[in-house]
Amino acid sequence: MGISYARRIAGVRPSAIRELLRLGDDPELISFGGGYPDPALFPMGELAEIYQKLLTPANARTLQYTESRGLVELRELIADRLTRNGTACGADDVLVIQGGQQGLDLTAKLVLDAGDVVITENPTFLGALIAFAPYEPQYAPVRIDDDGMDVDHLEEVLAANPGAKLLYTVPDFQNPAGVTLSLERRLRLIELANRHQLVVLEDTPYRDLRYEGSHLPTLKSLDTQGRVVHVGSFSKILAPGVRMGWAVAAPDVLEKLGLLKLAADTQSSTLNMAATAAYLGQYDVDQHVADGNVVYRHKRDLALATLDEVLPKSVRFTRPEGGLFTWLSFPDRFDATRFMQETLIPRAKVAYVPGATFFPLVQEPNHARLSYSGVPDDRLVDGLHRLADLLREELVE
Amino acid sequence: MGISYARRIAGVRPSAIRELLRLGDDPELISFGGGYPDPALFPMGELAEIYQKLLTPANARTLQYTESRGLVELRELIADRLTRNGTACGADDVLVIQGGQQGLDLTAKLVLDAGDVVITENPTFLGALIAFAPYEPQYAPVRIDDDGMDVDHLEEVLAANPGAKLLYTVPDFQNPAGVTLSLERRLRLIELANRHQLVVLEDTPYRDLRYEGSHLPTLKSLDTQGRVVHVGSFSKILAPGVRMGWAVAAPDVLEKLGLLKLAADTQSSTLNMAATAAYLGQYDVDQHVADGNVVYRHKRDLALATLDEVLPKSVRFTRPEGGLFTWLSFPDRFDATRFMQETLIPRAKVAYVPGATFFPLVQEPNHARLSYSGVPDDRLVDGLHRLADLLREELVE
Repeated sequence: MGISYARRIAGVRPSAIRELLRLGDDPELISFGGGYPDPALFPMGELAEIYQKLLTPANARTLQYTESRGLVELRELIADRLTRNGTACGADDVLVIQGGQQGLDLTAKLVLDAGDVVITENPTFLGALIAFAPYEPQYAPVRIDDDGMDVDHLEEVLAANPGAKLLYTVPDFQNPAGVTLSLERRLRLIELANRHQLVVLEDTPYRDLRYEGSHLPTLKSLDTQGRVVHVGSFSKILAPGVRMGWAVAAPDVLEKLGLLKLAADTQSSTLNMAATAAYLGQYDVDQHVADGNVVYRHKRDLALATLDEVLPKSVRFTRPEGGLFTWLSFPDRFDATRFMQETLIPRAKVAYVPGATFFPLVQEPNHARLSYSGVPDDRLVDGLHRLADLLREELVE
Repeated sequence: MGISYARRIAGVRPSAIRELLRLGDDPELISFGGGYPDPALFPMGELAEIYQKLLTPANARTLQYTESRGLVELRELIADRLTRNGTACGADDVLVIQGGQQGLDLTAKLVLDAGDVVITENPTFLGALIAFAPYEPQYAPVRIDDDGMDVDHLEEVLAANPGAKLLYTVPDFQNPAGVTLSLERRLRLIELANRHQLVVLEDTPYRDLRYEGSHLPTLKSLDTQGRVVHVGSFSKILAPGVRMGWAVAAPDVLEKLGLLKLAADTQSSTLNMAATAAYLGQYDVDQHVADGNVVYRHKRDLALATLDEVLPKSVRFTRPEGGLFTWLSFPDRFDATRFMQETLIPRAKVAYVPGATFFPLVQEPNHARLSYSGVPDDRLVDGLHRLADLLREELVE
């Protein structure tokens, strides 16, 4: 067959994410893999009522085409909530997107030419690397620690890559490492972005899932030059299955993103937009988030306490203040992928996400991402014990 | 501000489609503009019942993440229906996409490098030009007549563009012209595609809306070399607001398209996929389509009869056997855009889509696309009379 693909997708390969999604279907497996929210928290009754009301002949417009930018009532409610939480904006500053992932694709499409340098945390969100790959960027990863991206290292990386175009970051409860960018570093990051004329792509899927401490300002709220594209999602606070997210950016940037949204898929689902707007209008989403956070906080506390108790001392892990992940670091030269495939899954039916795929350049083998959100308490404790037992065998300290 | 956009989006401009979608909100306007399905045909009661059943705690997975390719039960039902209608395929040959538009974006992303030649009908679907623009192709448009793309002209165009990469076509009830590619030409098109190693993007949003004559085989069903990417949509046969479509392609092509879907937006809405599958499983969609076609056939007959009666003889129009559009051709040098803006809207509150934007290269000014699907009978007749009255003034035959 004579089909030749574009250069741009030559490097795009079947992905770890998709393999993991498939893996998750084995009911016996204790999977710390997916970044799934807890389905018991989905507001089922409320949504059932909302869809019931929307799906009547008088509301036929909820099944019709609508404006590509998204239903204005939803954009207003999103803007109101962001403004209430410190990121001032109006309905016209908001573009409704198909989950946060579409914000990454559209922003990359907007700013990246082949060979352009993208700065990321090291490690970074795998889905971002997948979104960016078709635009053939180069990567300049920046070290992270418990306070998120190391801005001193960022300054060095920018000096070495003066033409860098885009900085991608998950400032709150980062995927995969669970760490949060400190306020001081947020200010410094914006200052560096201004000096180097970077576009900053701020991805905030876990931002609302804070279990202790106070919310820090978004990068968008600190942005004085319209360089931040702020992306958020209802996947973790409402439900992923409605595929509902938002992008907030400066007017000219948002105009272009909206056009690329139109080009990509015409619009998001009118019905799901109307339902999300109805939910935000009729219920207290902040209370809903607070209720969910009680559950997630318990999961995190249980996971960290169990890890404290059972893990060999040579294995370190992060202590996230929110979100769904902790990041395990095994001794150097430990191969977390091989250990999972050859030992952990076959002998213990336990899985995590091996850390190697989260590194844009040099794939460090000795890490794993562990999600505590989707596993019942007893299986969570059981799974971590099994992990620790096999690790102790393997590490022979 | 220092944001520079990628070269690829330099040519992307605010679009006529979006302006039209906004225009459609004026309730006084008689708009023949949008290609909207009739909302009275949406299966509201059925969908209300389906969503009600899906949104129960026992079905929480309908709000959770799922496999990027789409729910297997939906892919099976789509494959069954396509197979029943002559395009043999299985669930693994189907990718669920966010309406047909996403199929155009992903296919262009898959095969186009900047400067690659795309062959289209002349005129062609504006949404395709919008989808392709970010990939910076060149266009080689091919003449059409009442039997669709003129394959003799296609052969000439291919001789002049031997490296052409992609052929985009709407073979059934084309947008904007309403014409259908004859069987003889379908066979010849595939033969030429094989000889020139083209990827054929077959876009079939209106295929099921046939009001007379027999269905012709899809290009996909005539494809012996795996070069056809077949794209379809539930927007016109179920409802656009659920954003549900499909792509069918050879295994290696579908694998790549699936990966680009994952990169673009992770997956389509689990809830809407489950609802579409439930609809297809529990109801007779072919009967639903047949019932809708009675309504649309009536609209088409009324529109064509009225045009026959009232239009000046110097204005020609196509006689589609299905779909939503007829294509008006005014005398040479008539400016359909200016006439609409300066005369038709201000004096008669009637709108169509000026034809110029549907031409990829040379924008012929003297055409208009007229959709008869979304306008009540009395307003349809009234609107066409008003159009004809003003045309008679303008044309002074």
